[in-house]
Amino acid sequence: MIETDTIAAPATPRGKSALAALRISGPAAFQITARCIQEKILFEKTPARYIQLFIAKDPITEKTIDQITAVKYSSPRSFTGEDMVEFFCHGGPFIVNEIHHALITAGARLAKKGEFTRRALLNRKIDLMKAEAIRGLIECNSEAEFLCAQKLYYSGNFASKIRNMREGLIEQLAKIENFIEFEEEQGGIKARQDDKEGIVSILKQIEADLTKREKIKTIEKGLRIVIAGPTNAGKSTLFNTIVGYNRAIVHSKPGTTRDTISETVLIKGHEVLLIDSAGIRDGTDDIEREGVVRSKEEIEKAHILIWVTAADRPFEEEELKELMNFKHKNTIYLINKIDKSEGKEKHFYLDTKKIKAIGISLKNHINNEQLMDEIGKRVEQINKDIEVPDLLLNARYDEIGRSLYNEIKLTIEHWDRAEVAANYLKSGITKIDEWLGKTNTEDIINKIFDGFCIGK
Amino acid sequence: MIETDTIAAPATPRGKSALAALRISGPAAFQITARCIQEKILFEKTPARYIQLFIAKDPITEKTIDQITAVKYSSPRSFTGEDMVEFFCHGGPFIVNEIHHALITAGARLAKKGEFTRRALLNRKIDLMKAEAIRGLIECNSEAEFLCAQKLYYSGNFASKIRNMREGLIEQLAKIENFIEFEEEQGGIKARQDDKEGIVSILKQIEADLTKREKIKTIEKGLRIVIAGPTNAGKSTLFNTIVGYNRAIVHSKPGTTRDTISETVLIKGHEVLLIDSAGIRDGTDDIEREGVVRSKEEIEKAHILIWVTAADRPFEEEELKELMNFKHKNTIYLINKIDKSEGKEKHFYLDTKKIKAIGISLKNHINNEQLMDEIGKRVEQINKDIEVPDLLLNARYDEIGRSLYNEIKLTIEHWDRAEVAANYLKSGITKIDEWLGKTNTEDIINKIFDGFCIGK
Repeated sequence: MIETDTIAAPATPRGKSALAALRISGPAAFQITARCIQEKILFEKTPARYIQLFIAKDPITEKTIDQITAVKYSSPRSFTGEDMVEFFCHGGPFIVNEIHHALITAGARLAKKGEFTRRALLNRKIDLMKAEAIRGLIECNSEAEFLCAQKLYYSGNFASKIRNMREGLIEQLAKIENFIEFEEEQGGIKARQDDKEGIVSILKQIEADLTKREKIKTIEKGLRIVIAGPTNAGKSTLFNTIVGYNRAIVHSKPGTTRDTISETVLIKGHEVLLIDSAGIRDGTDDIEREGVVRSKEEIEKAHILIWVTAADRPFEEEELKELMNFKHKNTIYLINKIDKSEGKEKHFYLDTKKIKAIGISLKNHINNEQLMDEIGKRVEQINKDIEVPDLLLNARYDEIGRSLYNEIKLTIEHWDRAEVAANYLKSGITKIDEWLGKTNTEDIINKIFDGFCIGK
Repeated sequence: MIETDTIAAPATPRGKSALAALRISGPAAFQITARCIQEKILFEKTPARYIQLFIAKDPITEKTIDQITAVKYSSPRSFTGEDMVEFFCHGGPFIVNEIHHALITAGARLAKKGEFTRRALLNRKIDLMKAEAIRGLIECNSEAEFLCAQKLYYSGNFASKIRNMREGLIEQLAKIENFIEFEEEQGGIKARQDDKEGIVSILKQIEADLTKREKIKTIEKGLRIVIAGPTNAGKSTLFNTIVGYNRAIVHSKPGTTRDTISETVLIKGHEVLLIDSAGIRDGTDDIEREGVVRSKEEIEKAHILIWVTAADRPFEEEELKELMNFKHKNTIYLINKIDKSEGKEKHFYLDTKKIKAIGISLKNHINNEQLMDEIGKRVEQINKDIEVPDLLLNARYDEIGRSLYNEIKLTIEHWDRAEVAANYLKSGITKIDEWLGKTNTEDIINKIFDGFCIGK
């Protein structure tokens, strides 16, 4: 199936920004572009991959749209493998629409989701797994997912790793079938036991990956640090202090104002969502009660909890109850306001529970640095504990890995009934075929590209 | 004031997309970039304006970040006039952060809002008015604003137009002052009357622009078409029909799902917000009542109203009252369901009120095309009626134009008291100085750049 029309789409998110990009790909890409810029001859003469200033215009009305830069990529040396042009204009949604409209008017078709990447796949510029890697790079919500997508993108011929595993299983299958045929022969049973080792090692490999995958899932939505503790202990001051120390270098998300209860911060290079449970609890009556529930939920979801209590007040019973409730959590304990009182009693009490607390005065900046170090260490530890799997690098692979694991496990369990084992093993091999896109190819491709954005 | 540090920032909106761009500008731009890519030598050898594939890496850990393309721009042939590099990576927020972080780690500073454009201004690559034009191109919310920004961007040396006006006023001022000095001379009064003509023509010029500006303000937030009419007349069917005919070629806005009551559609190339007042009205009791109020507000704000009524039901008193209430609006009247009844009575009644209605069957696609033509005509007419002002091309100019108009008007009103007139005229000239950025320069520049996004 070879596409013969020319597609165009914006390639950057809609929003107000310095730059916006659009792309056109297909046999008529250069011709259509030439109709949409004033300097037709200059465009035709400009060498490939050289970025050049042009004035974009409407091909019918000849009206000026914007001063843009454009780059030609000649087939097959382009992302899609077809002739392509990339446009960079001022980052205003109106301008993007006008240029897109001009390209459509001049003969291009609106690209479907992921259609550029799909063409790259059809033209053998990338394989199915690289396409999935690109999707992963764009879609990842957490650092762990990003690392997985990166591994898939850069691990060269990833498919060959899967094919090796497939060959290993086919070899095992041949042995089992061989055994079935010559069951009566001497020494068969013994050989069968040796064979089992080979398949067990494949099982272990998948098992190890599934474990790594489980860990990744715990921080799939990103790392969360929650600040909790009794009223007036200094939760909001703590929130602002941490934000002040670690403001993330992220450009503002359009359409959102600063959230009063959560803020994205960058700690030791890791993006972390910091949540002030005080903001959740604020309110009265019904709202207050709901706040308490939500606050508990946030604590439950937290990867790191920072409990802050005031040095100049005794523990109340409720606080102690709560403290015990989340003893299992990764918690940093702070005794704040040590400028007012040493908080000896609290330290002493916590010592009896084998809890080490940091005395701090957020107001007077006593031990703030120590706190930041502690937070940094914990964030780094969590990220260090994450291991990128060898093979199960995205949700689809995870799903296939899980089924494969079950089939191989059943194969081993029924090892002594060779025919049953062979059936399970065959079923496992079909899972790998699915992984490689050998079966259900069109379904798999559609599933992958439906998740893409327009313009990719 | 010459900046000596090197700044870096993302240049495209945060979001998941095919591409994202980052920029770095300043004396160390090339050196910092070289530290953040694996192919240092290739980068150094790559000629300016040639787009080249690289692997971006962390300068400290040497870890791979992403496969990117980068383009060098050598000073002074760049947007800022400094050495610059533009990076294009996969459009995932994680990747953008990682590359930005790498550039900062390697020695760049996080750019402030509009700092790239500010440097372009300081390095005389653009003037103040071009900077305002760029802001306008990015920030515009309506086509009219876009056309204004475009005019400012492309009208060459726009400042010279303003300077010409300034010179005209200074000439008038000289004449008045001359008159004051030689007041006793013969024929003075007569000459003063001739002079007045010159200043009146300037006043008229500004007045014409202010009128154009007023018209633009009415569609500042974009064109709105509202669908209204009694229950069960087919409002929602009409909404879906129009959306189906005119789906906008706009890429989806991140974070928003399809709004049930409004949709952006592209009609004859113009972006229009279509609103179904039925969606607003839905609900019961209190919500219903509030819906009616909101629905009326939407009708009031509409540039085009489409009133739809059913052919098979008689007019109710309330509907007729409403119909009369918005007789002043630009309204398209539809009598729907003509497959069920001809609706003769309704046509007859509307005829007596000199209202021409279109009989339609949305369900059976009778006269749908005629309706679309009518909508298209009205949208085009509204846009045709918009004239782009000569000088008052943005909100700041509008404000200055308004003050200038008042000062000149007062000058003319006090024409016979030469000293008073001279004072008003001087005050008018200071407004022009403000316009040109001759006075309050730093304030004006700050005001302009505070409105910019980071990365521009």
